Amino acid sequence: MTPDTSKHILLMDGPDSKGLIYHVTGVLYRHGLNIIHNDEYVSPAGQFFMRTEFEGTFDSEALLNELYNTLPNADGITFRLNPKRKKNIVVFVTKEHHCLGDLLIRYAFDELDADILAVISNYNHLQPLVSKFGIPFHYVSHEGRSREEHEEAIRRTLSIYEPDYLVLAKYMRVLTAGFVGLFPNRIINIHHSFLPAFVGANPYRQAYERGVKIIGATAHFVNNDLDEGPIIAQNVKEVDHRHSAADMATEGRDVEKIVLSQALKLVFNDRVFIAGNRAIVL
Amino acid sequence: MTPDTSKHILLMDGPDSKGLIYHVTGVLYRHGLNIIHNDEYVSPAGQFFMRTEFEGTFDSEALLNELYNTLPNADGITFRLNPKRKKNIVVFVTKEHHCLGDLLIRYAFDELDADILAVISNYNHLQPLVSKFGIPFHYVSHEGRSREEHEEAIRRTLSIYEPDYLVLAKYMRVLTAGFVGLFPNRIINIHHSFLPAFVGANPYRQAYERGVKIIGATAHFVNNDLDEGPIIAQNVKEVDHRHSAADMATEGRDVEKIVLSQALKLVFNDRVFIAGNRAIVL
Amino acid sequence: MTPDTSKHILLMDGPDSKGLIYHVTGVLYRHGLNIIHNDEYVSPAGQFFMRTEFEGTFDSEALLNELYNTLPNADGITFRLNPKRKKNIVVFVTKEHHCLGDLLIRYAFDELDADILAVISNYNHLQPLVSKFGIPFHYVSHEGRSREEHEEAIRRTLSIYEPDYLVLAKYMRVLTAGFVGLFPNRIINIHHSFLPAFVGANPYRQAYERGVKIIGATAHFVNNDLDEGPIIAQNVKEVDHRHSAADMATEGRDVEKIVLSQALKLVFNDRVFIAGNRAIVL
Amino acid sequence: MTPDTSKHILLMDGPDSKGLIYHVTGVLYRHGLNIIHNDEYVSPAGQFFMRTEFEGTFDSEALLNELYNTLPNADGITFRLNPKRKKNIVVFVTKEHHCLGDLLIRYAFDELDADILAVISNYNHLQPLVSKFGIPFHYVSHEGRSREEHEEAIRRTLSIYEPDYLVLAKYMRVLTAGFVGLFPNRIINIHHSFLPAFVGANPYRQAYERGVKIIGATAHFVNNDLDEGPIIAQNVKEVDHRHSAADMATEGRDVEKIVLSQALKLVFNDRVFIAGNRAIVL
Repeated sequence: MTPDTSKHILLMDGPDSKGLIYHVTGVLYRHGLNIIHNDEYVSPAGQFFMRTEFEGTFDSEALLNELYNTLPNADGITFRLNPKRKKNIVVFVTKEHHCLGDLLIRYAFDELDADILAVISNYNHLQPLVSKFGIPFHYVSHEGRSREEHEEAIRRTLSIYEPDYLVLAKYMRVLTAGFVGLFPNRIINIHHSFLPAFVGANPYRQAYERGVKIIGATAHFVNNDLDEGPIIAQNVKEVDHRHSAADMATEGRDVEKIVLSQALKLVFNDRVFIAGNRAIVL
Repeated sequence: MTPDTSKHILLMDGPDSKGLIYHVTGVLYRHGLNIIHNDEYVSPAGQFFMRTEFEGTFDSEALLNELYNTLPNADGITFRLNPKRKKNIVVFVTKEHHCLGDLLIRYAFDELDADILAVISNYNHLQPLVSKFGIPFHYVSHEGRSREEHEEAIRRTLSIYEPDYLVLAKYMRVLTAGFVGLFPNRIINIHHSFLPAFVGANPYRQAYERGVKIIGATAHFVNNDLDEGPIIAQNVKEVDHRHSAADMATEGRDVEKIVLSQALKLVFNDRVFIAGNRAIVL
Repeated sequence: MTPDTSKHILLMDGPDSKGLIYHVTGVLYRHGLNIIHNDEYVSPAGQFFMRTEFEGTFDSEALLNELYNTLPNADGITFRLNPKRKKNIVVFVTKEHHCLGDLLIRYAFDELDADILAVISNYNHLQPLVSKFGIPFHYVSHEGRSREEHEEAIRRTLSIYEPDYLVLAKYMRVLTAGFVGLFPNRIINIHHSFLPAFVGANPYRQAYERGVKIIGATAHFVNNDLDEGPIIAQNVKEVDHRHSAADMATEGRDVEKIVLSQALKLVFNDRVFIAGNRAIVL
Repeated sequence: MTPDTSKHILLMDGPDSKGLIYHVTGVLYRHGLNIIHNDEYVSPAGQFFMRTEFEGTFDSEALLNELYNTLPNADGITFRLNPKRKKNIVVFVTKEHHCLGDLLIRYAFDELDADILAVISNYNHLQPLVSKFGIPFHYVSHEGRSREEHEEAIRRTLSIYEPDYLVLAKYMRVLTAGFVGLFPNRIINIHHSFLPAFVGANPYRQAYERGVKIIGATAHFVNNDLDEGPIIAQNVKEVDHRHSAADMATEGRDVEKIVLSQALKLVFNDRVFIAGNRAIVL
């Protein structure tokens, strides 16, 4: 068996009890592994989360076994051991280019911590942009198809790839629970409002009509409820009465693309735990 | 008749048409008045707003008459002519001190652009603080009273004073439409969320449970609908998963008190127009 | 003579005096022109600035003459009358791609309010990116050349084009006063710090060593002094002790590219006056 | 010997080596102590910092001995063990009230994590405000005194008290190295600029003249060099050309008072390590 030698990330969560940090760091210490970063958090409900980035040579299976066995009580505890590596993603878009453009530029210069395997869209508007970067573009129209038929076509397209994550970079279609259920905690969306304000369609129009003085964007995991999954990152920007709904949309695009990239960076570096409807970022 | 000589603010709003700025500034020019600041805005719906701060000696009634008469078509146009002066306010509180404390310190050092005539509260917790500053404190309990009886008692207390504005500085009671209707566009509230997110009770608890990454506060005029009036000012602050609901409340207090003071400064300087449910700040 | 009929922007600045708004809006009114936006500002030193966006049909020369003639005293007053149009720019870069990438994506989707005529660089690293967008890329190396020889080579390259503005999108060479003097108020730079903090080289290294809790970026006009021209736009981002200088640089890139684009939008829409070392944005 | 039973904070710093977390948490585990929060950081230079908040019953001296003895190599390692308690402070002011006012309100409602033992000022302007809160106010004028004589008078006043920290809440006098040396890492200042921009006098005047678009405030430890100590917290606020230097000062006051309070909260909760000229906040 070939030992692992690169950097790894150990993710642990479960009920809090005395000595968890001690026991886990003890296992790593006895294996001669060097901790680079260690972060932990205990929720008010008593749930313990720890992310440990370490380096050294070890046998993954043996290490995981020892981790579980060293704890006085491992009931409910989960360990995950991820090599530090780039993730593979497929990006979904509709017609808007700003989030996709930002991802493509980052990808082209190896700043994304991920490889973009393909882009899928229900329109062909962004094909020329994607083709500049030599990435497959799949035009899967929803015209004349039921939602289920459309998603089935997407699934067939996706079957060529093995993405770690699906990134909805302004994909303006609601996904069915059935589709979402195939990728639990693996679909990330950017919503163009400061959630939970302005759920649903036309958030900038809603923001204009409500007369808000700040607009925002929210990157979140997608679960069965529209715009309701765990929030990974948010940011905002001041506006005033002079901004029409269209002006807000223009200003908001810069917020959207930066928030999406920030959220992806956190997820792709295995820094995000999901606890119910909350995202814990360590 | 004594002519007015101090600084004044002319507020104008109505349907937009060609030449409005020209005609109005012409009247001021012919009266030898000096414009210090002039700001205007035309809404997408074609409503014109202008705020003109000027100085010089003039007869208010004559000036207003000439303003109306000089326009080719004054239908729907409203002019208001306010001397630049401190406003009179009554502050409403419940138990929380941070917004009140901030207002009192500003008032004590003449930074509020207003005189605090009195503080009214449904609890007596803040009486010691208010008394330090030599301001009347009226404890009007809601215990054993219907909402209408309680508001009637408040009205009797208010009748001693002639406030320009009522400031709800964390007053945790909903006012009836009847009461609000007595002070149209003259009640200002601070709500401890980034409206329209988290309307109603316990917004920090709601924010915690939703797992937001940014909290905020909103100062707005109060109309008949809870947390629904025109927004004057908003601000936000980053939080993360480590903030409990109580931590968010603590952090949020600093945002609340600053936003409230900023909004009051705008209102007290006659910089806020109300257009439907939107506040235009010139 | 063909009359102008599209949207125009009238820029006026000079010593303040009574009636300026009245006289200028009167000329526009008598010509039947419709003011869309009007903004003015008087500096504490008594300098008057006004930007008037209007539409209608008129003769430019006649209008300008009447504007100068209608003022009781036009001494020191300057009017400029610009058709609302896209600007032409040449972008200068060195090796970093993030600002250029952002501009290219915006340009590709007609969001830049400008046409990118060409990109000039002292390295050829970014040629592949630029070529994706079908824009001329000129590699003008500084190797083996004096500063003056290098700038002379750049000038020869530039002579093909007639840019309104030169945009230094992370161009890491100091320009001589001679070169800068050829393009007064027409060179815009993005500096990777919150000026005037961390002037000069390696601002993120400086920021790390000083232990700042916020980093920033500044878009400014370039004049003879390094990092000293009028500031058009700035923005910032929170950091903490965990950010190495390299992390700050990574985070800072997102701030830089957004600030540069925001500043360019203001300049390209004729919204920026220069008053000494300050930029007035109307 | 009475055992300690309340909450404590263990602060550790020194050269990083394998197993530090393991060894330290092991000692706490064997003593039956419960870790509430644990945060650690390793600087790029290889310095290890850890803050451990825990509860339980123990003997301080024995615990510290065991901590030093359990490490394979304790050379250069420092442990500090602080009971979680309110700090005692003396506040220094000159004429400006806003930071002091904010501290007094927080103190009056037990939100400061500190007791204000006294206020010292070189003017008597703020005596009426301080007296409202029943806190000793010492007017120690600098008139007719050399800097050393003045500081000697302050020292005599201070000798009544045993403050943990001196808080310079807009104290507009430079302290000598001699005085500062008496309170190493125990003097906290609020500077009214975004350091290192605008060191020294009149930062808002400097900011106005430079035409910055953002102003800020910086809370930092005071060492021998003016405005040069480790930065604890900073915050900023957008301004534009319409803000005079006086307007910037007004807007800046809100930033100053909030930043100072935030920094004090961090320091008073033993969350700040000093590493050279940088503050590590755990």
